Amino acid sequence: MILILKKGISDEEIESIVLKIKDAGLTPHISKGNERVIIGLVGDSRAKDRDYWLSVHGVEDAIRVLKPFKLASREFKSENTVITVDGIKIGGNEVVVMAGPCAVEGREQLLQTAEIVKNYGAKILRGGAFKPRTSPYSFKGLGKEGLMYLKEAKEKFGLPVVTEVMSIEQIEDVSQYADIIQIGARNMQNFSLLEEVGKTRKPILLKRGLSAKIEEFLLAAEYILFNGNPNVILCERGIRTFETYTRNTLDISAVPVLKSLTHLPVIVDPSHAIGLRDYIIPVSLASIAAGADGLIVEVHPEPEKALSDGAQSLYPEQFKELIKKLKKVGGAVGRPV
Amino acid sequence: MILILKKGISDEEIESIVLKIKDAGLTPHISKGNERVIIGLVGDSRAKDRDYWLSVHGVEDAIRVLKPFKLASREFKSENTVITVDGIKIGGNEVVVMAGPCAVEGREQLLQTAEIVKNYGAKILRGGAFKPRTSPYSFKGLGKEGLMYLKEAKEKFGLPVVTEVMSIEQIEDVSQYADIIQIGARNMQNFSLLEEVGKTRKPILLKRGLSAKIEEFLLAAEYILFNGNPNVILCERGIRTFETYTRNTLDISAVPVLKSLTHLPVIVDPSHAIGLRDYIIPVSLASIAAGADGLIVEVHPEPEKALSDGAQSLYPEQFKELIKKLKKVGGAVGRPV
Amino acid sequence: MILILKKGISDEEIESIVLKIKDAGLTPHISKGNERVIIGLVGDSRAKDRDYWLSVHGVEDAIRVLKPFKLASREFKSENTVITVDGIKIGGNEVVVMAGPCAVEGREQLLQTAEIVKNYGAKILRGGAFKPRTSPYSFKGLGKEGLMYLKEAKEKFGLPVVTEVMSIEQIEDVSQYADIIQIGARNMQNFSLLEEVGKTRKPILLKRGLSAKIEEFLLAAEYILFNGNPNVILCERGIRTFETYTRNTLDISAVPVLKSLTHLPVIVDPSHAIGLRDYIIPVSLASIAAGADGLIVEVHPEPEKALSDGAQSLYPEQFKELIKKLKKVGGAVGRPV
Amino acid sequence: MILILKKGISDEEIESIVLKIKDAGLTPHISKGNERVIIGLVGDSRAKDRDYWLSVHGVEDAIRVLKPFKLASREFKSENTVITVDGIKIGGNEVVVMAGPCAVEGREQLLQTAEIVKNYGAKILRGGAFKPRTSPYSFKGLGKEGLMYLKEAKEKFGLPVVTEVMSIEQIEDVSQYADIIQIGARNMQNFSLLEEVGKTRKPILLKRGLSAKIEEFLLAAEYILFNGNPNVILCERGIRTFETYTRNTLDISAVPVLKSLTHLPVIVDPSHAIGLRDYIIPVSLASIAAGADGLIVEVHPEPEKALSDGAQSLYPEQFKELIKKLKKVGGAVGRPV
Repeated sequence: MILILKKGISDEEIESIVLKIKDAGLTPHISKGNERVIIGLVGDSRAKDRDYWLSVHGVEDAIRVLKPFKLASREFKSENTVITVDGIKIGGNEVVVMAGPCAVEGREQLLQTAEIVKNYGAKILRGGAFKPRTSPYSFKGLGKEGLMYLKEAKEKFGLPVVTEVMSIEQIEDVSQYADIIQIGARNMQNFSLLEEVGKTRKPILLKRGLSAKIEEFLLAAEYILFNGNPNVILCERGIRTFETYTRNTLDISAVPVLKSLTHLPVIVDPSHAIGLRDYIIPVSLASIAAGADGLIVEVHPEPEKALSDGAQSLYPEQFKELIKKLKKVGGAVGRPV
Repeated sequence: MILILKKGISDEEIESIVLKIKDAGLTPHISKGNERVIIGLVGDSRAKDRDYWLSVHGVEDAIRVLKPFKLASREFKSENTVITVDGIKIGGNEVVVMAGPCAVEGREQLLQTAEIVKNYGAKILRGGAFKPRTSPYSFKGLGKEGLMYLKEAKEKFGLPVVTEVMSIEQIEDVSQYADIIQIGARNMQNFSLLEEVGKTRKPILLKRGLSAKIEEFLLAAEYILFNGNPNVILCERGIRTFETYTRNTLDISAVPVLKSLTHLPVIVDPSHAIGLRDYIIPVSLASIAAGADGLIVEVHPEPEKALSDGAQSLYPEQFKELIKKLKKVGGAVGRPV
Repeated sequence: MILILKKGISDEEIESIVLKIKDAGLTPHISKGNERVIIGLVGDSRAKDRDYWLSVHGVEDAIRVLKPFKLASREFKSENTVITVDGIKIGGNEVVVMAGPCAVEGREQLLQTAEIVKNYGAKILRGGAFKPRTSPYSFKGLGKEGLMYLKEAKEKFGLPVVTEVMSIEQIEDVSQYADIIQIGARNMQNFSLLEEVGKTRKPILLKRGLSAKIEEFLLAAEYILFNGNPNVILCERGIRTFETYTRNTLDISAVPVLKSLTHLPVIVDPSHAIGLRDYIIPVSLASIAAGADGLIVEVHPEPEKALSDGAQSLYPEQFKELIKKLKKVGGAVGRPV
Repeated sequence: MILILKKGISDEEIESIVLKIKDAGLTPHISKGNERVIIGLVGDSRAKDRDYWLSVHGVEDAIRVLKPFKLASREFKSENTVITVDGIKIGGNEVVVMAGPCAVEGREQLLQTAEIVKNYGAKILRGGAFKPRTSPYSFKGLGKEGLMYLKEAKEKFGLPVVTEVMSIEQIEDVSQYADIIQIGARNMQNFSLLEEVGKTRKPILLKRGLSAKIEEFLLAAEYILFNGNPNVILCERGIRTFETYTRNTLDISAVPVLKSLTHLPVIVDPSHAIGLRDYIIPVSLASIAAGADGLIVEVHPEPEKALSDGAQSLYPEQFKELIKKLKKVGGAVGRPV
């Protein structure tokens, strides 16, 4: 931590700040400039956070030198974390495609979609049984019934399953049926939920919040890691900006930035990021070119009949085309699909 | 709902869309312009959401005519909702000030703060027992112990208490100790939690999410209302923007906009919106001038020793000054403080 | 400037950075922490900007200690700048209301509006002769003809005039007709234009850019001051955020923040900030409560016939009501209107 | 245009609105729903803009059906615009790389950089002679001297030149020396400047403003087209969001969206979008995978000595690596580099 003191600070005030620094078990290094005094704090300054120092009288600004996340950082663990689900490696060299409907709407719809995505090359099946919806009047998913269909699809087509939990109570049920538990964007800072999934050992697919900074995203992952679960997959899914043409704005540079800051796998959800199916393919190719370890994509056999997110669900033919093109771009960057 | 069809659409395609409209129990009104065909849907188009129509082949855009929230709307209930807590009316003509520390840090700190804010004119005591924190390494509150101190402060100083719940499990405990349950900004779209507090009859102080649109904010309130709890207080607490000088950007116009769209009380949290104590007073005055029904403000007897949010907590003397000035501005707009 | 060096940096690399610091005429103060080395630069580090230090090998981050603006800062000039236009003081204790139509549309419309706003209490007349429009197909103003009507209105009603310049060529003409020259939000970083108006001595009303940080806004003012013109009035007019209900989001806390950082007058334009006339009054009252030195408001005798910005123009009766309420709130904060 | 009328509107009010519609030369199509009346306007509703209708009494909302830009749209011209500069085709199948220093700092620096980028595969040389800088104290470019060095570099290495104009006065000089004129992000809505470059026939590289919506970006292009110059190259260069880790947020989906909405070439500037050289390569590959027609990249022989933007300038070796990888990804998407 570095403290920038207020202009015209007196020697007594500086002395009082120095005492606080020593009380915190840190060593102060003072530099007196022409206009300002700055103090570098040596020692493990994670003990007192930036907020604390900002509240100290005479301190104008406090600048963190160390990153606030530790277990998630590359400095803590330099090699990539590879998470294996039924033999499928996420975070390894191969690009993994997860696909399926936004919501499980019924047995037929799910089995049909599972067959399509399996045939065209998806490795993992997505599908929501518990659906967070902005309006209380929208379809909220089939719940446990949906979980059973997911399990049936898994057994029939050999596709491991990723599905969302919205609350602590659902964790147990979902854990029995799913291979990967998703934490949705709106729950990225539901810290109680993060702690609980951190106590399981299930792989967690953590979506970036709509307005989460990269650092906050990694601190949300840190919650899970800190509670003992090392299996976290990060998912960039678009952030909220002033642009309204697309549903959100995919932060493509978050992919290489995250890959540099953390050892955890990073995938992209182009469907929620863009919201319009006709732009899913180019943005998916871009994600792999930027270094993503995988994709999670919405596909529906008949998007026009989808109970949620129909506008962003790919037609089966589009998904086929996506995979075909992904193989080429993946090949160009040394990442087989 | 109004559908704008794609350019160059054929008559057969229009016919197919018209069938879908009729299937949904709606009546289509078609207008053929020079370049586009538009169809107005007559009937209760809440049944099929915008998303559905966007996914229909041939539809370029779908525009909602009706607001997606109902129970929260002024059209549903034109007179103001006034929520009475221990005789204090929130949403009435009088401006209500809620104040106290960010977190309950101990018995002494809380009782001392309660006495200060009571003496200077606060009507309700705030204080966090369960604290959502961005980092797993930060102080997370005293939990149940904190709730007991809040109850003691309430009994001693006659101040009703508002405190946060972070998960469904905490609702029961918090309900026993608190008079108003707060849902924090990061949980504004924790729909499971909204549903559960909607099943209680406790007043709920619902904070706007960091990147929540006004419509989404009102839909979050709708979740609570829809589950049977009519006692919702809305709290504007700053939104996330590109500006980094302040912690967030207080959306001051949200106050009159919300007062116009909904019958629910609207208060402002200037502490989290701004994050810097020296700007809390002018922004608080602005909030009342704009029509807010109250404020929730952080005060700490010794902000420099606060375990969280010290930089934005008012000194007791500042709180005294705030109330003095609020009385004048409140008077000017016909709202006694 | 403070430099944070990369983890694991070698002594030779540090030495090479130290040489660069000395070359820049600065003195390095080195603090070696457990994990990082930081170097404080003592001397006038404005010579080499942050960008320079970021590009130096081994530097991970560079933090500015001094504010990048000087002439605009309170530290440079502690007392308020008061700009006098025809005897009207802007930035003094009295709140100044500027009002008029978005665009000068004709002689009748302008004279009629001028009479209305004068009668109800405006001190300065606004009206656009050169209009920046998002679309090339929109009404772009009457140009020089509009300037002449403004002058006529000024002479007839004794109202000084503020109007916009969009390019260097217009400065000479506008200077002859107007008392205050406006630089619009879209030109806030048109540095060539800032330099030229900086060479005049006319008061400049500088609007904040749609996505300008407070620091950038003050640096734009600094361009004008640096070129010799001390008469700059800052105008907060809403920033662009994700919220779409209002045209922009008024950054109300920018008012006290600016008043604290700079000695220049600060006014608010609620019309462009909100874009909907029914919310102009509460937001105007809030602006004065927050400490603004004035307002610039759009008024139109018949908003429905306005050639631009009709939706946000006040009806004459609303303007009358605004002034009446402003007087009360101004009184409450010790600022006569 | 579609008008949504206020709830509970009377028949007389509707009649009055209908008269206004007819006055505008349009035909009204009325649909009366259960709760609202909507009116579709048939005819060329570009004559009266959305703003006009919003200001009409009784109108709650007005929705544009037609895109506000015409000349820039795919509907106006379906085939791609290909702009040829010294035989190099921009907007054709081949990906064009423009590279060079942020600013021309001197003869040696420019010639050296030109040689490097030429050798590694750049087709066009970039370099700023007139530099827009946030602070008046920063290096503002060599001006005309810089233009001469650009011309010399062009002649020596056969690289056409792109450089920025900041004001109308510079257009003539820059036109003599440069092959492509750049309009910077901060001037994207400097409409006077857009009109003037629209009167030339020089290719214009138009950068997207920091907070410009896609529609506004295309309307800025429309200004140039409307003034007679059909040679506009659009450049996505990152938008301003809440994320501060990168300088801006590259809006990758803007690439396919623009390619779908307009016939104009679309290139990407990863240097300004990201601001950190270590992420330029993955983001550049992503841009080409997403369908961009080219890149404009900052390269400096010694970034640590750069007078501006050193932190985002590639080392020569990085540029070499970029081109090598671009060729592979370009090949994978059928776009030779």
